[in-house]
Amino acid sequence: MQPTGQQLIGQQTVAAHGAPIQAIDPATGERLEPIYAGGSAAEVERACALAEAACDAYRETSLEARAVFLDTIASEIEALGDAPIERAMAETGLPRARLEGERGRTCGQLRLFAAVVRAGEWLDVRIDPALPERQPMPRADLRQRHIALGPVAVFGASNFPLAFSVAGGDTASALAAGCPVVVKAHSAHPGTSELVGRAIQRAVEKCKLPEGVFSLLFGSGNEIGQALVADPRIQAVGFTGSRRGGTALMKTAQARPQPIPVYAEMSSINPVFLLPEALAARGSEIAEGFVASLTMGAGQFCTNPGLVIGVKGPALDAFLAAAGEAVRGSAAQTMLTPGIHAAYEDGVGQLAGEAREIARGPAGEGPHQCQAALFAARGADFLQSEALQAEVFGAASVVIECADLAEMRAVAEALEGQLTATLQLDDGDLDAARALLPALERRAGRVLANGWPTGVEVCHAMVHGGPYPATSDARSTSVGSAAIQRFLRPVCYQSLPAGLLPPALRDGNPLGVTRLVDGQRES
Amino acid sequence: MQPTGQQLIGQQTVAAHGAPIQAIDPATGERLEPIYAGGSAAEVERACALAEAACDAYRETSLEARAVFLDTIASEIEALGDAPIERAMAETGLPRARLEGERGRTCGQLRLFAAVVRAGEWLDVRIDPALPERQPMPRADLRQRHIALGPVAVFGASNFPLAFSVAGGDTASALAAGCPVVVKAHSAHPGTSELVGRAIQRAVEKCKLPEGVFSLLFGSGNEIGQALVADPRIQAVGFTGSRRGGTALMKTAQARPQPIPVYAEMSSINPVFLLPEALAARGSEIAEGFVASLTMGAGQFCTNPGLVIGVKGPALDAFLAAAGEAVRGSAAQTMLTPGIHAAYEDGVGQLAGEAREIARGPAGEGPHQCQAALFAARGADFLQSEALQAEVFGAASVVIECADLAEMRAVAEALEGQLTATLQLDDGDLDAARALLPALERRAGRVLANGWPTGVEVCHAMVHGGPYPATSDARSTSVGSAAIQRFLRPVCYQSLPAGLLPPALRDGNPLGVTRLVDGQRES
Repeated sequence: MQPTGQQLIGQQTVAAHGAPIQAIDPATGERLEPIYAGGSAAEVERACALAEAACDAYRETSLEARAVFLDTIASEIEALGDAPIERAMAETGLPRARLEGERGRTCGQLRLFAAVVRAGEWLDVRIDPALPERQPMPRADLRQRHIALGPVAVFGASNFPLAFSVAGGDTASALAAGCPVVVKAHSAHPGTSELVGRAIQRAVEKCKLPEGVFSLLFGSGNEIGQALVADPRIQAVGFTGSRRGGTALMKTAQARPQPIPVYAEMSSINPVFLLPEALAARGSEIAEGFVASLTMGAGQFCTNPGLVIGVKGPALDAFLAAAGEAVRGSAAQTMLTPGIHAAYEDGVGQLAGEAREIARGPAGEGPHQCQAALFAARGADFLQSEALQAEVFGAASVVIECADLAEMRAVAEALEGQLTATLQLDDGDLDAARALLPALERRAGRVLANGWPTGVEVCHAMVHGGPYPATSDARSTSVGSAAIQRFLRPVCYQSLPAGLLPPALRDGNPLGVTRLVDGQRES
Repeated sequence: MQPTGQQLIGQQTVAAHGAPIQAIDPATGERLEPIYAGGSAAEVERACALAEAACDAYRETSLEARAVFLDTIASEIEALGDAPIERAMAETGLPRARLEGERGRTCGQLRLFAAVVRAGEWLDVRIDPALPERQPMPRADLRQRHIALGPVAVFGASNFPLAFSVAGGDTASALAAGCPVVVKAHSAHPGTSELVGRAIQRAVEKCKLPEGVFSLLFGSGNEIGQALVADPRIQAVGFTGSRRGGTALMKTAQARPQPIPVYAEMSSINPVFLLPEALAARGSEIAEGFVASLTMGAGQFCTNPGLVIGVKGPALDAFLAAAGEAVRGSAAQTMLTPGIHAAYEDGVGQLAGEAREIARGPAGEGPHQCQAALFAARGADFLQSEALQAEVFGAASVVIECADLAEMRAVAEALEGQLTATLQLDDGDLDAARALLPALERRAGRVLANGWPTGVEVCHAMVHGGPYPATSDARSTSVGSAAIQRFLRPVCYQSLPAGLLPPALRDGNPLGVTRLVDGQRES
C-alpha cells in the first residue's frame, strides 16, 4: 500500500488541484513523492454535505456497532503493517521505535473509546419519572441523554503523526461520541495521513456505515481549514498546534452565524517547581530527569518542561551546573520539519535576548537538528517579561532563580494557563507545596509530583487540557476517555411515547447503562 | 426589612453614585423608592478582588459546609417573609401567587443544589492506580476531580425576579460548584434584588465564609456588566435575557486576553408541531392548551410557544378558529416593564407585516398590558422570512400552514436552535413524529410530546438549553442539577503524596462519593 496523493471524500478518492503539498524528509531534505495538492471549497462543501447526511444515522448506531467500528479502525491501521511507520519516519524524522509506540497508542486509544462507548456512561442517562399526583402541580416524565453535536472538523497535529493526527485522539473521541469527522491533514505528513485515512475509509465500508462518517482533505495554507470551520454543518473543532493557529480557528468559529465550540490545544511551558528540600537532597538526579524530559523527541511535546523555578542558592547553582552538563551531553535530534526547526532557532534567539545562556547541546550533523538550549533568568525578570513565558517548541528551557519562596509563589501566580505543573518535592517540602498547590490547580490541567510532564497516559483520569492559552476550553481534555464529552450535548425528552424514546431512555434499561433515577445512581 | 438603595460588596453595603436606577410599577406607572444608582469601575474591581480572594478557600469548603451554605441562603430568603414578594409585585407587576410559587422554586432550587453538592457526583472522581510493573512503561498514579472555574458573573433576568435573578439558578449552581459570585442586578427589580442579596450576605456571614463569596452590583446601562465580564478575575458568566444582550457579552468574553465561557440563555420561539391525527381528533382541545400556555404570565417565558406548525386543511382551520377565539377571550396582563411592553408591541407590529392576523386579545385597562396576538403564515413564507423566526417576547405566536408533511419537515430543518420543540401527536402520528425527531433533537434542548413547553421542572433530567441562538453553549443547561457542570473543570493529579491530595481523591474514599476506578464505576 503506497500513498497515491489523493483526498478521501466519503468512499471516494478525489484528486485535488490546489497549491502543491510535498512532504520533506527533515533528516535529508529530500522531497517525498507523491506530490499532494490542496483541496477546493467545493470539496470542503462535499465532505461536509456527506458528513451531515451521515449524521443522524451514525449518531444513532447501537453502542456495539459504534464500538465495533472503532475496533475495526484499529485493526485496519494494524493491517497496514510497516507502510505508515516507514512513511512517517520519512515525513517526520521520528525514529521507528517512537512511531511503533505511537501506533500502539493510537490503536489502544481507539479500543479504549470502543470500551467507553460500550459502557455507555457518556450517555449520562437521567430519568425523573412522572409524578401525576404531585401538588400543587404534577411532574411530567423527564428523561435526559447526551447526543452527538454533529459533524466535527479535526486538524492533524505535526508532532504526533499517528496518535494526534488522522485517526488520533480527536477523531477517536468524536467518532465515539457519534459525530462524523472531516479531517484536515497536516501538510507535514500527507502520505502518513492518506494511509491512515484509507484504513478508516475501509473500516467505514466494512461496518456498512454511511460514507460521510469520514473524509480527509488536504490544504497547504489556512484556506481549507478556515472554510471547514466556517461551514455551517460543522458543529465542533478539534485542533492541536500553535497558539496562532488555534486562536485563528477560535475567531472563525465565533464569527459564524452560529458560533461553535473549538477545542484547541495550543501552547504550554509546563513549569517545574524545585522545592528546597528536594533540590538540596537530589538536585543532580532531578537535573538528569529534567534534561531527559526536555530533550526527549527533540523536545517536540506539548508537555515539554520549558520552565523550571527554584530558589537561588548553592543548591540551584549545582542543579544548573548538572543540567547544563546534561544538555551539553545530549544528542542533537532531527526536528519534524524545516519550518519547526527554523522557528525553534528563532525562539532560542529570543530567549537569549532575555536570559543568560547556561548551555547549548551539540550541533547536529544533519540538517534541521535540534540543538538543546538551557537558559537562566531572575524571578524578578520573569515577572516583568512576557517573552520568558512564550513557548519555544523544542528542547529549550529557562530556569528561573527566585529570591525566596514568596517570589516562587509570585511566579506561579503570574503564569498563564498550562497543560501541566510539576512539583519536585521531598517530605520536608509539603508545606511549601501546599502553599503553591491552589495557584497551580487554577492554572494547569494536570499537577504532578516527582515526575516529568512528558508522557501523557491515555486513561480515564487523564486531563490533557488547561486554562487558556494552554487550550481554548479549560473544561475539557483532549487525551483520555473524558475527551468524548467535548462532542456531546444533553437533550431532555418530556412525556415521549415509548415508541419514540431512544433505547438508552426506555423503561427496563435495555442498554444496561448506569442511570440517575430521581437523583439516585443506578448502576 | 426595606430596601435601602445600596450595593452589597462582600459584607459591606456601599452607596453607588452612577446614573440613577428607579424601578417602575408597571401596573400603575408609579416610580418606586428608593432610587438606586449605578456602581463604578472601582466597585467592580473591589467585588472581583474580594471574589478572587475568597475563591481558593471557598472552593475547598467541605461538601457539607457548602451544602449548609446553600440551605442557609434558602432559609434566609424564607425569613424575609412577605417583603420580597410585595416588593417584586410592585416592581414586576407579577401576581402574588406566581411570586410565592417562584420563591418556593428558588428555595427548592437552592436545596436541590445542596443535595447535589452532598452527593458529590459533580466531582467526577476518576482514579487510575499506578501500575509500576507495566511493560514497556510503568503507569503513574493518576487521579482526577472537578474544581470550580473561579469567580462567576451572574446577570439577573427580568422575567424571574426570584428564580433567575440574584439567588436564582445561575447563582445557586455557581455557588454549588464552589465559585464565588458577583451578581449584576437587573435594573427592573433593584429592590427585590437588594432584599434577596442581603439574605445571601447574611448566609455568608452565618456560615463564616470569606466575604467575597457574594457581591451585588447595580448598573443602569451596559457599562458595569461589560466591566464585570472583562475583569480578568471573572472566569465564567451566567446570563438570561435578550439575544442582543447575550451576544454582546459573548463578544466581550471572547475579546479578553483570556477568553472565558458565557452561558447566555437568549431567545427561542419553541415550535409546536401539530401532527395530523392529533389535530383532527382534538384540535380544539389543543388550541385551548396552546393559548393557555401562550398567554400564561403575559407570555413572558423563555419557553413561550411562539410558533405552531400544522398542515393546511379543515382541521388546521378549525384549530385557528378555536385558538383565535381563545386569544380574543384571554385577559390582558401587565407586562414586566414599560420597555418590555413597548418591545412587544413593536414585535407584534413586525409580525403583522409578515403574517395575517388571526386574533388579538382584548386591550387592557391599565398601562403596559399585553394584548395577546395570533398570526398565520404559509410554510413557504416561513422558509423565506427571517422575521418569522424572530422571538417576540410576550403572548404572540404565529401558526405556520404547511402544504404537506414534507414542508413541515422543511420548516423543522430551517429552524434556528431552540430551548424546546413540542409534538402534538396521537398513535397514528408516530411515523410522522419519528421522521421529525432527528431534526428536533439537533435543534432543541428539550423535546416534548402532548404537553406545553412553559413550566420548566427543576430536576435532574431537565435541559433548559439548546443550540445557538437559544443559548450560547448547547453543551449545558441553566435549569436543573446538571447546571452545576457549567462552572467546573477537570484537574488531574499525578503521583501526588497522600498529604497533598484533596479529600475527594484520597485512598479509602473518605467523602464516600461515586468514583470511576480503572474504568469501573464504584458507587
